[in-house]
Amino acid sequence: MNNKLKLVTIGGGSSYTPELVEGIIKQYESFPISEYWLVDIEDGQEKQEIIAALAKRQFAKAEIPIKVFTTLNRRDALQNADFVTTQIRVGGLKARALDESIPAKYDVIGQETNGPGGLFKALRTIPVILDIIKDCEELCPNAWIINFTNPAGIITQAVHQTTSWKKFIGVCNLPYGMHVDISNLLGVNLSRIRIDMVGLNHLVFGINTFLDGHNINKQIIDSYRNNKGFGMKNIADIPWSSAYLNSLGYIPCSYLRYYHQHDDMLDVQKEQSRTNTTRAEVVMKLEEELLLKYKDSNLDTKPSELELRGGAYYSSAACNLMDSIYNDKKDIQVVNTVNRGALIGIDLSDVVEVSSIITKEGPIPLTMPKLNEGALGIIQQMKAFEKQTVKAAISGNYSDAYLAMVINPLVQSEKKAKKILDEMLEAHQQYLPQFNKKRE
Amino acid sequence: MNNKLKLVTIGGGSSYTPELVEGIIKQYESFPISEYWLVDIEDGQEKQEIIAALAKRQFAKAEIPIKVFTTLNRRDALQNADFVTTQIRVGGLKARALDESIPAKYDVIGQETNGPGGLFKALRTIPVILDIIKDCEELCPNAWIINFTNPAGIITQAVHQTTSWKKFIGVCNLPYGMHVDISNLLGVNLSRIRIDMVGLNHLVFGINTFLDGHNINKQIIDSYRNNKGFGMKNIADIPWSSAYLNSLGYIPCSYLRYYHQHDDMLDVQKEQSRTNTTRAEVVMKLEEELLLKYKDSNLDTKPSELELRGGAYYSSAACNLMDSIYNDKKDIQVVNTVNRGALIGIDLSDVVEVSSIITKEGPIPLTMPKLNEGALGIIQQMKAFEKQTVKAAISGNYSDAYLAMVINPLVQSEKKAKKILDEMLEAHQQYLPQFNKKRE
Amino acid sequence: MNNKLKLVTIGGGSSYTPELVEGIIKQYESFPISEYWLVDIEDGQEKQEIIAALAKRQFAKAEIPIKVFTTLNRRDALQNADFVTTQIRVGGLKARALDESIPAKYDVIGQETNGPGGLFKALRTIPVILDIIKDCEELCPNAWIINFTNPAGIITQAVHQTTSWKKFIGVCNLPYGMHVDISNLLGVNLSRIRIDMVGLNHLVFGINTFLDGHNINKQIIDSYRNNKGFGMKNIADIPWSSAYLNSLGYIPCSYLRYYHQHDDMLDVQKEQSRTNTTRAEVVMKLEEELLLKYKDSNLDTKPSELELRGGAYYSSAACNLMDSIYNDKKDIQVVNTVNRGALIGIDLSDVVEVSSIITKEGPIPLTMPKLNEGALGIIQQMKAFEKQTVKAAISGNYSDAYLAMVINPLVQSEKKAKKILDEMLEAHQQYLPQFNKKRE
Amino acid sequence: MNNKLKLVTIGGGSSYTPELVEGIIKQYESFPISEYWLVDIEDGQEKQEIIAALAKRQFAKAEIPIKVFTTLNRRDALQNADFVTTQIRVGGLKARALDESIPAKYDVIGQETNGPGGLFKALRTIPVILDIIKDCEELCPNAWIINFTNPAGIITQAVHQTTSWKKFIGVCNLPYGMHVDISNLLGVNLSRIRIDMVGLNHLVFGINTFLDGHNINKQIIDSYRNNKGFGMKNIADIPWSSAYLNSLGYIPCSYLRYYHQHDDMLDVQKEQSRTNTTRAEVVMKLEEELLLKYKDSNLDTKPSELELRGGAYYSSAACNLMDSIYNDKKDIQVVNTVNRGALIGIDLSDVVEVSSIITKEGPIPLTMPKLNEGALGIIQQMKAFEKQTVKAAISGNYSDAYLAMVINPLVQSEKKAKKILDEMLEAHQQYLPQFNKKRE
Repeated sequence: MNNKLKLVTIGGGSSYTPELVEGIIKQYESFPISEYWLVDIEDGQEKQEIIAALAKRQFAKAEIPIKVFTTLNRRDALQNADFVTTQIRVGGLKARALDESIPAKYDVIGQETNGPGGLFKALRTIPVILDIIKDCEELCPNAWIINFTNPAGIITQAVHQTTSWKKFIGVCNLPYGMHVDISNLLGVNLSRIRIDMVGLNHLVFGINTFLDGHNINKQIIDSYRNNKGFGMKNIADIPWSSAYLNSLGYIPCSYLRYYHQHDDMLDVQKEQSRTNTTRAEVVMKLEEELLLKYKDSNLDTKPSELELRGGAYYSSAACNLMDSIYNDKKDIQVVNTVNRGALIGIDLSDVVEVSSIITKEGPIPLTMPKLNEGALGIIQQMKAFEKQTVKAAISGNYSDAYLAMVINPLVQSEKKAKKILDEMLEAHQQYLPQFNKKRE
Repeated sequence: MNNKLKLVTIGGGSSYTPELVEGIIKQYESFPISEYWLVDIEDGQEKQEIIAALAKRQFAKAEIPIKVFTTLNRRDALQNADFVTTQIRVGGLKARALDESIPAKYDVIGQETNGPGGLFKALRTIPVILDIIKDCEELCPNAWIINFTNPAGIITQAVHQTTSWKKFIGVCNLPYGMHVDISNLLGVNLSRIRIDMVGLNHLVFGINTFLDGHNINKQIIDSYRNNKGFGMKNIADIPWSSAYLNSLGYIPCSYLRYYHQHDDMLDVQKEQSRTNTTRAEVVMKLEEELLLKYKDSNLDTKPSELELRGGAYYSSAACNLMDSIYNDKKDIQVVNTVNRGALIGIDLSDVVEVSSIITKEGPIPLTMPKLNEGALGIIQQMKAFEKQTVKAAISGNYSDAYLAMVINPLVQSEKKAKKILDEMLEAHQQYLPQFNKKRE
Repeated sequence: MNNKLKLVTIGGGSSYTPELVEGIIKQYESFPISEYWLVDIEDGQEKQEIIAALAKRQFAKAEIPIKVFTTLNRRDALQNADFVTTQIRVGGLKARALDESIPAKYDVIGQETNGPGGLFKALRTIPVILDIIKDCEELCPNAWIINFTNPAGIITQAVHQTTSWKKFIGVCNLPYGMHVDISNLLGVNLSRIRIDMVGLNHLVFGINTFLDGHNINKQIIDSYRNNKGFGMKNIADIPWSSAYLNSLGYIPCSYLRYYHQHDDMLDVQKEQSRTNTTRAEVVMKLEEELLLKYKDSNLDTKPSELELRGGAYYSSAACNLMDSIYNDKKDIQVVNTVNRGALIGIDLSDVVEVSSIITKEGPIPLTMPKLNEGALGIIQQMKAFEKQTVKAAISGNYSDAYLAMVINPLVQSEKKAKKILDEMLEAHQQYLPQFNKKRE
Repeated sequence: MNNKLKLVTIGGGSSYTPELVEGIIKQYESFPISEYWLVDIEDGQEKQEIIAALAKRQFAKAEIPIKVFTTLNRRDALQNADFVTTQIRVGGLKARALDESIPAKYDVIGQETNGPGGLFKALRTIPVILDIIKDCEELCPNAWIINFTNPAGIITQAVHQTTSWKKFIGVCNLPYGMHVDISNLLGVNLSRIRIDMVGLNHLVFGINTFLDGHNINKQIIDSYRNNKGFGMKNIADIPWSSAYLNSLGYIPCSYLRYYHQHDDMLDVQKEQSRTNTTRAEVVMKLEEELLLKYKDSNLDTKPSELELRGGAYYSSAACNLMDSIYNDKKDIQVVNTVNRGALIGIDLSDVVEVSSIITKEGPIPLTMPKLNEGALGIIQQMKAFEKQTVKAAISGNYSDAYLAMVINPLVQSEKKAKKILDEMLEAHQQYLPQFNKKRE
């Protein structure tokens, strides 16, 4: 790596960017980037300019000499980049709204990551990510790509399964958030907590929790059920029962509610649809408000409202990761990367979300004990869905997409699967060129 | 094996027995048993005597010199047995009715094999089967045990996972029936058809079909969707769509409807509950009528009504298996046995349902190609449920049973799981001594 | 397959061919080939013509209407072939003599299959076999290729590892011979014996032996050590000790002597080198004598001297295999094919030699119990050598070939490895174009 | 762990102890033990007292308040121990001399770790170690056992395979030494070097080397071959060829010479036998001299001659490990522990030597890329030998020990195996009670 560290964010117009900028500032001493490039498509140009202006004010206030650039030409930005972060949303929030509302018509949870919504987000996104990688192979072959784009697990699977690009890591704020939640619960410094985590993105389990190395798993499981404050902002806050937590023996992630509290979550979604408060709709409003704030030329820090957006800790997760790669820190972080033997029961070459040490050559997953039946079965089923989704995203075959839809644990009905699939293929047609070709 | 072949049927009072007797007669030339023992518990004594009398008339009509014995003392029957078949129903059809009706209250399909009903049938049955094995170890250590008792896959898993008894095979009529269906469809002799099958009991897939060795898989998949006559008598006859069958690429078994046509199957169950035509209720009536027939001293063959009972081909499946073991036939049959590498993605020591050659030393599973995602994920999830069920049946721990209930793909709700579990533990209390001990 | 069965033998000039012709005659009723094509290179033309004439006399005597064709143009022969057998020797027996004599200079056993000699035979042969497959893809895409060419295991590995051609089976006479040996020992018909065999070509183990389905393994192991007559003609007949056979618990194949009786075998080889009676030299003389016999226009059957040649049973092994494929016999034969889970501890996609049922779609390996340490370790090490050999044969890299040489269990010395490698690369230069390119 | 840290060394009379004491002193600040107990058997009492006196002088000079205790009663020492190190030699150096000299009679390298000598060292030692664990289960169930006793890999395998004691780690100085060698070679601080290591004890490979996180593997492989100073003191210093190192692509450990430079190593051993300079003989002399030094009441530091003894870095390896456990350091160390998925191709539950992070709950192995054929085959074969050795050590069956001897890569002759085995069983009879029972 050269002395002039160049960081590129693809999807620079995302409302998350100021959060990332804050992270860059915090980490500057050990991870001193000199150029920060924002890239977006034409639709995002206006937002990107607003955000770039805010970023400049943020850096200025922090008295940090990082130059900010914006472009609509991805290739200009990627030239000799050292790190690339991807936070794109193909089709925008409107597409997300469809991902959630179409399945809901059939009493199916949309779930924009591992559900039918996630299937379509993956179908739209994977071809774009693979194009970005082709550019990187040519323009910045030594760069690390840090992907926040959802469904992060499936996208990382697609990259490692279908390309020879190794330097691609999927990052989610959820594992980081679980560490923060537990340190808050115990009233101790975050650095004293270690959770051994393994599973898939949005289907990860905390299999053991340690305070200063002492195993406090039982204590945490006891606390967990009483603590409503845990979990993601964007997931309904239904507490787990004591019976459930004790029988599972692991700390579940918020998304497990979609599978093990399916009915309650479906009720929540129906209510949201009825009251026009689906997550997409909430976020659209939030984004508008945020953007107004961002425009304010007096604003020179991340506004606190951003935390409602759902991406809390993304910045920390991402910047810690880049810092540890840059400095070969060998600390433990939870990332989406190639399994290699960490998760027994999943193929060695598949992507998992797992506690890994972070080195200059990337993450090395830690070996984990074999998971119990409560976690293993659902993970294996979801990985089958993920791989079928990747297959469909590449092939553009109706049949492949249909099978992915049927085997998704939120669907389970070949009839509904067909209806949802057909309606979504129609609705997202413009973002699914690989499927259109087939139809012609 | 001695020259005097001794066959024992545990659960002799079952209405299926005359079917089995018919099979014994057909196979007599190559599998010449000399003594046939029926064993039942006191509640079944009357039925067993009626059935033994019918069996004697059946053998007499066929002019076959097999002696029939009845006893309520299992140990008397097992002494020096060569083959033991088990077809028990702990708690009788009343328990089955509860297995179906209690989950139905919570809009959950009971499904007496792989659903919540199957969980409880396993909890009631596994301890009894393990006791039978203890007797066999002492009284007939060289005997083969052929188990028809449902859930046949879970019970076979329990035996191989927790005992050192190797000569235990689980048999289901479903794979045999699929072969018959396809030979009927094509209008060819059964012996010309081979389906390579692999999966779990009631979750098995026909991955390739051959006519005289020629692969006719695509043709069969095409035919399958148009043919309503396929499948088990006891499962609602909802046809598969062309889209589904093409995308799966395998022949699904009837039970897959519970998972991939979940809503329709739930509707069927609700309608059955409303009209008092659940499978348990239908079977209870059928059994009464059958028993009246059996009593008729002029009856000396299996009455045709028995086929409505749902166990068609059990006799053929069982007698073919015993014949092939006895004569080291090395023909291919589909049985529940230890995996050993046949189903990639399932542990080597777990039990699977798979095409195997049948030798004097038992089944040797054939290696199978790795399953596609449409089949593998649901199989892995179900195996997790099966193993958790075995764990609970042995431990008698509430927590273990609860986790099994939650992870069952028909449940997916920790709240419903708790309600169903608690109500079923209460309802079946007298047949679950292992759980009662814990409560005291 | 068409009604006119066409069989092609590549390497038609081999002295083995009359043996194969005899097999074709025996199997004619169920495997009625109508055209038999012999293909060879120019150097083999004279031999091939002599052998074709004999074949015609053999068929005439048997009154079987098979037409015999000879050609030097492989592509003419392959057009629409149904079965292709390969029995080639790139470089001829002179190359074999070098394979044996060069290592011998350094006190290393040459061993033309799994030793340093086998490494070079593989390096010479694999490119030719891959060329044949390219022709088959174009000219006879439905043909089955039955390969007798040594090292049969490595060549089969090369085909399945580096091409998409599935219909390729490696056959060795050794497993068939072990069945014959044991049936002779017991004085029973061959059909009553079954040996469950698994391992690699020339490193296969009989893990259980059955007479009419009864396990007689212990009895056979006892007999084995007293019976000097067992084993291959081309391997020195050093008996196994009782201690060895009991501790191993399996029936070893003759080639295991190279690894577990290494010193004695080395002494044999030295003595052979001293007295000019290496196998290559013996065979060269035998071939000359055989060819003289073959020329005799009164000869119309396979001469008995052919059995000394070492290929006894090749004909039976090959014709049984083709017959079972053609007729979808589903009988058990021991072949080299893709593992798929049969040999635990070897990758699923690697090639193993294993008891398989033979169907119209080829062999389906039987699952085997996990091997004990006595067999597993040496098999795993040999498979590493085999895969490294394939890598070297494809890459033509000195470094790859060198690593294969060092890790061969007969070498174990990096210095000797280098000397042997360099001398053999030089000696075989004209048959190793892939290595020559690299040097230029 | 209590505040009063208690460390016990079993085999306290070992000449290595002063080295360990030095390590304890260095690490005292972060790993403040308060009691140090030495345990030995009667034969070692005199040596132990000399060494305890020296230890007291060492602690006194360092002004560290550690109390030193000696006892011949292991149970007295183990009571409430926090850490236990084991460095025993059942039968003493005389037994080692036999381990080396008996195989040498038959032109076989004795090799006291993974060779025939190691087999017998394991047979003598494993029962004693299992007895120690029984005591620990009763007296110090929370203690960590750090085993230096050779063959460290086999002993660690025995413990994890046959007991439920988890807190047992095998340590070797070789991986630590390789790190030191490379840091010396580069002239950089040890902390800047990381070698990803994986394999078995004394058969471990450095698969990648990093300087400050930068992969310098190729550079190191180039340097390695020119640097005679590398490797263990107790292994003849035969350099690796450039061809070998390039084709392997990993850094080999010194012990690999026994397998890939077998002839040269055998020559060395023969010369040593001829000149009475076998390692056992050299060490016996060294020990005498060392003990004389130790007796000198003016000596209050580890004498430099100890480094010739061969155990350089044992102290650092052991003390670093205990320190990291005690302080939950999560740094990377190379230890012998349960595989869990780190070494693909070896069973999950087997013991491997692998780079692991060290936590308060012990080592967590890092996942490693699949090894190339050059390393994997020999490792798999050696693991088969190791497991067969453990089987023999537990069973005391002649047959099990014989199979272990035959499959050892240094033996490869069933005849020699028998002679060596019989002579060694006789020679070590008094230390092999499990085998004597069988004979009676």
